[in-house]
Amino acid sequence: MAERIGFFGLGIMGKPMSQHLLNAGYSLTVLDVVKPAMDELVALGAQAAAAPKAVAAQSDVVITMLPDSPQVEEVVLGKYGLLEGLHAGMLVIDMSTIMPSVARRVTAAIRAKGGDALDAPVSGGEVGAKNAALTIMVGGSQAAFDRAKPIFEKMGKNITLVGEAGAGQITKAANQIIVGVTIAAVSEALLLAAKAGADPAKVREALMGGFAASRILELHGNRMVQRTFAPGFKIKLHRKDLNIILNTARELGVSLPMSANVAELMNGLIANGCGDLDHSAFVTILEKLANFEIKSNV
Amino acid sequence: MAERIGFFGLGIMGKPMSQHLLNAGYSLTVLDVVKPAMDELVALGAQAAAAPKAVAAQSDVVITMLPDSPQVEEVVLGKYGLLEGLHAGMLVIDMSTIMPSVARRVTAAIRAKGGDALDAPVSGGEVGAKNAALTIMVGGSQAAFDRAKPIFEKMGKNITLVGEAGAGQITKAANQIIVGVTIAAVSEALLLAAKAGADPAKVREALMGGFAASRILELHGNRMVQRTFAPGFKIKLHRKDLNIILNTARELGVSLPMSANVAELMNGLIANGCGDLDHSAFVTILEKLANFEIKSNV
Repeated sequence: MAERIGFFGLGIMGKPMSQHLLNAGYSLTVLDVVKPAMDELVALGAQAAAAPKAVAAQSDVVITMLPDSPQVEEVVLGKYGLLEGLHAGMLVIDMSTIMPSVARRVTAAIRAKGGDALDAPVSGGEVGAKNAALTIMVGGSQAAFDRAKPIFEKMGKNITLVGEAGAGQITKAANQIIVGVTIAAVSEALLLAAKAGADPAKVREALMGGFAASRILELHGNRMVQRTFAPGFKIKLHRKDLNIILNTARELGVSLPMSANVAELMNGLIANGCGDLDHSAFVTILEKLANFEIKSNV
Repeated sequence: MAERIGFFGLGIMGKPMSQHLLNAGYSLTVLDVVKPAMDELVALGAQAAAAPKAVAAQSDVVITMLPDSPQVEEVVLGKYGLLEGLHAGMLVIDMSTIMPSVARRVTAAIRAKGGDALDAPVSGGEVGAKNAALTIMVGGSQAAFDRAKPIFEKMGKNITLVGEAGAGQITKAANQIIVGVTIAAVSEALLLAAKAGADPAKVREALMGGFAASRILELHGNRMVQRTFAPGFKIKLHRKDLNIILNTARELGVSLPMSANVAELMNGLIANGCGDLDHSAFVTILEKLANFEIKSNV
């Protein structure tokens, strides 16, 4: 018998992800604070629930796709939360991006009650969610991973069990450090080149053949040159992920000067009303400092 | 008739580069401050010269591969320099990594005397030089580029004319920003992951499939995990390139917070006796701050 799935969080990411599961034939119970989002899924065949506890009662596997650590703690550990309705053998998969330490605490609480849990944050953004092409980074037990794999395969590709509880969130943190700092690197490189009188589009092409080559130079570098800053992945969400990263670094006693610098400059972008732009718009805060725009040269 | 080539600077890079030209059958005149380096090339069939001026007299094309801007200015513009021996139609190709503004000044001086010049810095390091696989980023006229191309093809691949005089150096500066800052990004990501208890080797593998993918994560990330810090490209040379970059940024009125931060941390590495290690050893300065080494987890 196929697993009955519960799904929390029907936002930009959660909506297409849950639709893929419905389309694959899974019985789906959904819950979101936004009523119209639930209605949309119900119209497609999902059942609506009134509280996390109720979702747990009628699901074998529960997936959460929520904004941040406090929401995951609330849904799992809070009053009328998942833990209250937990039954033996239930698997909770948190696909939100949250603090690794919170992921470990939530997993421990679920295991103590006879369930199991995976932290399985994703990258690939809205486009990846819609195309069922998300990268999924997983922490937890091999048995839980094997059980969840057919479900993951309905939503993503590049699905990796990295290690025990928390390892998925740690990998996502590492991903967001590299993506954020590399965007900053490409911003500085193309801005300097343009201000010095070179065509940033040609510079980018020349660099793609060498050690500077990256997905970020390819995609986000092109967005900078083309001035296409519609998200994509919003600066305010990347700033939230960097908050998680810097808090985690503080917990662990690790110093991350580059990530901290990027976070501070993203604060400047948000203060300038750019929080809803794609993170490739990072270049614009450096352009303000230089009083010069890359496009003026192309 | 094949071009007669003069070659200045027979160091780690210049020696294999000049040897490729000799092997390709070019008549070669060489000059270096280090006598044994010249003797080695003479034993292979090159002629030795006594001063830049003399090299100019017996060459159609002169290549310089020198440590930094002052050496290039000295060889071209100094007493007994190339300019004194310049003849009409002579082409000077500077493959050193120097200030873009110096490259433009040198080119202007050569053109004013009836010659032409290209700035054509490379990336790919000692291995790229030995394998004739350098990436060559070129600034100057199309005609000079077309003339130089058969010579470049004996030393490299990915040979791009980016724009007018200085554009090669600007592209190299952009390259070194991205490489340096991306190394710092990968350092922070793998260090945080390891300190949080994840296996940095597995985290690196999981990230290679997504937006964090880069040549740096692939190559330098692996060096960090494997603790193989033999150069490659030395930290003290990358620090020199960042000096060029930050001086150029100051000339242009551009602010580069990430590059400045990387340069400062490289100063710390050099102060700790790490200047001769590969730039992937950047991670060790963050490890000092965290009092933790990545390898202790693997």
